[in-house]
Amino acid sequence: MIERYFEDLKVGDRFQSGPYEVTEKAINDFAREFDPQPFHLDRAAANKSVFRGLVASGWHTAAITMRLLVMSGLNIAGGAIGLGVDELRFPKPVRPGDTLRLEIEIVDVRLSKSKPDRGTARIRYATRNQDDEVVFTQTATILVPKRGYSL
Amino acid sequence: MIERYFEDLKVGDRFQSGPYEVTEKAINDFAREFDPQPFHLDRAAANKSVFRGLVASGWHTAAITMRLLVMSGLNIAGGAIGLGVDELRFPKPVRPGDTLRLEIEIVDVRLSKSKPDRGTARIRYATRNQDDEVVFTQTATILVPKRGYSL
Repeated sequence: MIERYFEDLKVGDRFQSGPYEVTEKAINDFAREFDPQPFHLDRAAANKSVFRGLVASGWHTAAITMRLLVMSGLNIAGGAIGLGVDELRFPKPVRPGDTLRLEIEIVDVRLSKSKPDRGTARIRYATRNQDDEVVFTQTATILVPKRGYSL
Repeated sequence: MIERYFEDLKVGDRFQSGPYEVTEKAINDFAREFDPQPFHLDRAAANKSVFRGLVASGWHTAAITMRLLVMSGLNIAGGAIGLGVDELRFPKPVRPGDTLRLEIEIVDVRLSKSKPDRGTARIRYATRNQDDEVVFTQTATILVPKRGYSL
């Protein structure tokens, strides 16, 4: 894959990932380690919850979205190093058997005022399921080296 | 643990979790599944990166923070159901052997205007390491049932 530097990124550029299936076992395993709540672990309890069925932890969906970013064609030179993330929203739950994919769009790019070797890019994410429904959105700011530099 | 309802929460209430150790194996395992980048996977490559050593994925720190929230005394009746999260920041990296703990503070509570059985609480998180340095902050809005209701 091509490695991208600051000069390669333009506002409006879009990238997308391949698909990623979310199994019931993966939902349970993630929840047992990081979000041990009944609606992520136990089908019967989940059926009686506000979700009316088993759902993935939102943090599982966020982690999968990071995986999909690495699988996308963005491929920033030196890696995707996040400075901050805003506006995480979960408009639909992720359920066992869902297949997710990521679409991203570059919404801002700016050169560092203090450091000559770098800039930042602001990226809008939308993670969608197999029915094209948006299950997760966020906006992240990442560090991007200028061509000829490594950070 | 006491289950808390909307009426139990007041602005300024604080809660904290017990400690959680982050091992090198856990950093590698999380990264292999969700954030396969050299500075999370390989010590030698990480030493040459902007981090000057192996660091946990920011999404790993966020997931651990969810775990710590579930371990804290907050314990919302029916579970911690997030509506959205803002302002995720990573002021210091998390490194192998770090021990993390979470402090949270309730910064806003409001009743739902449309649904009589619920309200929301806005929570400010700070995850600290063993040297009391803040490694992660965020602000989340969660759903909270009123006493006598389950969602």
